[in-house]
Amino acid sequence: MSTRKSNWGRWGESDERGALNHLTPERVINALKIPKTGKTYGLSIPIQRSGVPNMEYRGAPQRLTLTNHEDEAMARANGGAPGVGANEDQLIIPSHTSTHMDALCHVYSDNKIYNGFPAEGMTPYNGADKCSIDKVGGIAGRGVLIDVAAAKGVAMLPAGYVITAADLQLALDAQGTVLETGDLVLIRTGWLEDFLDNQSDLLPQPGIGLEAAAFLADKDVAIVGSDNSAIEPIPFDQNIYLGGHIILLVENGIHLIENLNLRELAADKCYEFFLSIGALMITGATASPVTPVAIG
Amino acid sequence: MSTRKSNWGRWGESDERGALNHLTPERVINALKIPKTGKTYGLSIPIQRSGVPNMEYRGAPQRLTLTNHEDEAMARANGGAPGVGANEDQLIIPSHTSTHMDALCHVYSDNKIYNGFPAEGMTPYNGADKCSIDKVGGIAGRGVLIDVAAAKGVAMLPAGYVITAADLQLALDAQGTVLETGDLVLIRTGWLEDFLDNQSDLLPQPGIGLEAAAFLADKDVAIVGSDNSAIEPIPFDQNIYLGGHIILLVENGIHLIENLNLRELAADKCYEFFLSIGALMITGATASPVTPVAIG
Amino acid sequence: MSTRKSNWGRWGESDERGALNHLTPERVINALKIPKTGKTYGLSIPIQRSGVPNMEYRGAPQRLTLTNHEDEAMARANGGAPGVGANEDQLIIPSHTSTHMDALCHVYSDNKIYNGFPAEGMTPYNGADKCSIDKVGGIAGRGVLIDVAAAKGVAMLPAGYVITAADLQLALDAQGTVLETGDLVLIRTGWLEDFLDNQSDLLPQPGIGLEAAAFLADKDVAIVGSDNSAIEPIPFDQNIYLGGHIILLVENGIHLIENLNLRELAADKCYEFFLSIGALMITGATASPVTPVAIG
Amino acid sequence: MSTRKSNWGRWGESDERGALNHLTPERVINALKIPKTGKTYGLSIPIQRSGVPNMEYRGAPQRLTLTNHEDEAMARANGGAPGVGANEDQLIIPSHTSTHMDALCHVYSDNKIYNGFPAEGMTPYNGADKCSIDKVGGIAGRGVLIDVAAAKGVAMLPAGYVITAADLQLALDAQGTVLETGDLVLIRTGWLEDFLDNQSDLLPQPGIGLEAAAFLADKDVAIVGSDNSAIEPIPFDQNIYLGGHIILLVENGIHLIENLNLRELAADKCYEFFLSIGALMITGATASPVTPVAIG
Repeated sequence: MSTRKSNWGRWGESDERGALNHLTPERVINALKIPKTGKTYGLSIPIQRSGVPNMEYRGAPQRLTLTNHEDEAMARANGGAPGVGANEDQLIIPSHTSTHMDALCHVYSDNKIYNGFPAEGMTPYNGADKCSIDKVGGIAGRGVLIDVAAAKGVAMLPAGYVITAADLQLALDAQGTVLETGDLVLIRTGWLEDFLDNQSDLLPQPGIGLEAAAFLADKDVAIVGSDNSAIEPIPFDQNIYLGGHIILLVENGIHLIENLNLRELAADKCYEFFLSIGALMITGATASPVTPVAIG
Repeated sequence: MSTRKSNWGRWGESDERGALNHLTPERVINALKIPKTGKTYGLSIPIQRSGVPNMEYRGAPQRLTLTNHEDEAMARANGGAPGVGANEDQLIIPSHTSTHMDALCHVYSDNKIYNGFPAEGMTPYNGADKCSIDKVGGIAGRGVLIDVAAAKGVAMLPAGYVITAADLQLALDAQGTVLETGDLVLIRTGWLEDFLDNQSDLLPQPGIGLEAAAFLADKDVAIVGSDNSAIEPIPFDQNIYLGGHIILLVENGIHLIENLNLRELAADKCYEFFLSIGALMITGATASPVTPVAIG
Repeated sequence: MSTRKSNWGRWGESDERGALNHLTPERVINALKIPKTGKTYGLSIPIQRSGVPNMEYRGAPQRLTLTNHEDEAMARANGGAPGVGANEDQLIIPSHTSTHMDALCHVYSDNKIYNGFPAEGMTPYNGADKCSIDKVGGIAGRGVLIDVAAAKGVAMLPAGYVITAADLQLALDAQGTVLETGDLVLIRTGWLEDFLDNQSDLLPQPGIGLEAAAFLADKDVAIVGSDNSAIEPIPFDQNIYLGGHIILLVENGIHLIENLNLRELAADKCYEFFLSIGALMITGATASPVTPVAIG
Repeated sequence: MSTRKSNWGRWGESDERGALNHLTPERVINALKIPKTGKTYGLSIPIQRSGVPNMEYRGAPQRLTLTNHEDEAMARANGGAPGVGANEDQLIIPSHTSTHMDALCHVYSDNKIYNGFPAEGMTPYNGADKCSIDKVGGIAGRGVLIDVAAAKGVAMLPAGYVITAADLQLALDAQGTVLETGDLVLIRTGWLEDFLDNQSDLLPQPGIGLEAAAFLADKDVAIVGSDNSAIEPIPFDQNIYLGGHIILLVENGIHLIENLNLRELAADKCYEFFLSIGALMITGATASPVTPVAIG
């Protein structure tokens, strides 16, 4: 480990929730007081075979029909009247596709995940024994949008652009926002909107660089999200593979949310809001698809 | 269609969101004022191969390891340092398993789903063309727990018990709760806790009967959830296949949430709370696994 | 239906095996006498995520690890000694990917599949009620390679080339092969070898045209296979969608085998051989991945 | 390793096919001369959700409809005439379910698979680097049925019965069969027929004990199959976890075929036959579902 700030041990040797520990009842109560309009935002993008940023090595997600009206014999066998029945699906979804929340076990460095748990604890059948997504629970707090693209006066940061700490501060100042401990910080690059609208190239992507990641870790935020596929830029800042994940997720226990749909919050210039996130309790999993819910 | 109350056409002929239309910004703002403790609850149960109420015909959900530390060659090929890499999963999940939210397209009667859209609109490749779960968006409002088991003085209602409207009113009165338009109503039978604790039989299950379903529809609630597999009892009340779904989902456009974990809310006697739900935007799907987030 | 040859009713109104009925024990015994070298050929290509002709709308096939040596706790729980255990996989495979055999229910025309069974008999949960791949059983007979590419003196027929009946006859004559009733005919275009070697474009592809399909149907062959993705050319001959499938599969009950690996048979100029095919008995399925086994 | 017979190194240090090396062209040619009736047998059981011996931890196999006649818009978009279209499936199949062939990488002992390759070579994303099922190729040879149940005069060996070498010899003598090098030996216990007919308990099962496994290894057979789930009895002989797999698969490189349907061969008293097996070329996989094809 480096001499950088680290949250290992901060909440005890057995802690598996990391910076989510910042989300005290007091902070939640305060966050509930933020909304002014009552407008509710779903911050996810569609889960579908194409048209969204699916990485090829994971396979595209698939929704398959398990039953529909053509299977009415099943309904009849259960006493159903003619014309009555149930439609159901079977889902095949890579956990790190679409809008999703990375568990703290997702990335390891020096063969260790957050809090020093060994990377070997992730095995094929059972998944991760520590810091899996089912350890997260319900999340709520103060959401903050940092609209870097807007602060820079562009619809989208250039492909591959490395967001600096100064860029973040510039946007915060432009917005009149001050970061607080336990904030759920969502960073807008404009990239995902461009991808969805224009089916542009999946790579490269803009994102926060190593310095900006350290800046957020120093602010003791609880979560970092962004409207791109890896929070970080791709190619990675300074060519350090998963360097931003290592600073935030591994060293500081800060969960990440990727492929966020920030279009409407940005259009409404809604920079502070109440935010809740309900990750699925998939036992042993390294991530969960999510639809974070914001209230402006 | 019967002479019972119906919401078809109430929000226009093209409406696909049903009773979620009750969730106006004003109601959301009011709901934000409810919490007193700031305690955050995740209301879902684990998604895993066994130990949870998986129905056999759907197949059990599976989390499979896509990559772990043994695939470090992939990380190295991308410039990763030794000991650095990413753990990822592949998920196979029936949409109606675990804690999930039924889309309005889930059930049809007289070959029609909510608002009169034809059942034929659900086809294998594309899924539902109307009222699929991706039409829902972020949801927030006033959550109300109706703890029928507690009002009856039992840990769990008897297997197969049909909850009546009087039972609901009894519990509401005991709690001192008054239902309001747009409430997100969660009904506790105690069944799921018993199943999880004792691995008891999956069937039969207690649940709300047809009369109780009509009672809730008349109250203009926005959502009905329960700690069982079908909201309704199994076997169905009066042996009417999916009769409760037909009243709530089909006729009144009230989304349902099943297999809810209400244990902790009940233990805390938390009967009114802020509730948010972020259904995944699975294009064309008939349901989504969810972790509703409550704040007491 | 056209005035073209049709096998509907030829083997009874309830027949679901079509031209496989040609494979009488006598023909099988005769086929066993063909081999001279005893060399055994597996005629399939790999099933894998990339590098093979996977059509995007089906999703790429995935082999996922269910258990490996890291799950030794499972082995230990079953009494396994240290260092002892089992590796297992979970497979996700589109039935019409890789080398596969089309069931007679795969394609319909005038809303009917082979022998006049209604297309409506294929429903989501149960699959096809008639002519599904599990009705096929073990297959063996005289295999014949028609190497059109070799007869034309090219490594690969041009992309999109429409093979004519004259082309087939030319190749047969060049080889000195005479088609017989019940033959399992494999047509080589050279396309698949080029795709695998050069990762060239998936489309267009050469294949047999409508006239050549009718030529083979008239010869009463039992099966037609090819080293391309659809037997037919893509784009389709005369722009008739699935026209070749309609003639062979629908009208004449001739099963098709696609994406065959014919490289080694062609290199050995092995034009007549014993051939066996063991389609998986997937209940209700429209196809099965296969590795046909030839003996020269 | 024990002092028992081992084939490690017998076909070179880099060999990944084991006893399949016995299947020389001469032996194949001889095997083709065996059939007398020309009757063709498919030796597999259905792949389906229930009614077959699916082990719960693997999940049941699923055939899901990818497209059917309700998706005709897809056909139309490709130029299809009304009433014309294609039915397709998506398959989810555990590799060790139904009738399947174990790859030599399936089981390890002393952390090594066949020929001494390390068990660590099986990683989540890529699967097995050595001895995976795609290394097998087309298989053909002399098939021999050893009908132990018939020799014992029972429809099914008792649940959990441990077949001895003497039992095998008894059955061979009763049949008048003499084992030869390179035989593809199929052992009938009667268990699977009973399971399919009566939906009896999955466990315990009869199977060949350690002594019988060593007997077959000493005979230099090329493959061992059986009409049960593990070739061996369950519980394992002498409580040695996977002991029979270790002798046959690991130490002697003999591929195994499980859940074989031997009913019809037995009914016909067909003890010697031509047998071919086409394992799917699933890259890196530890097994493949198969339908072996026998000709009597």
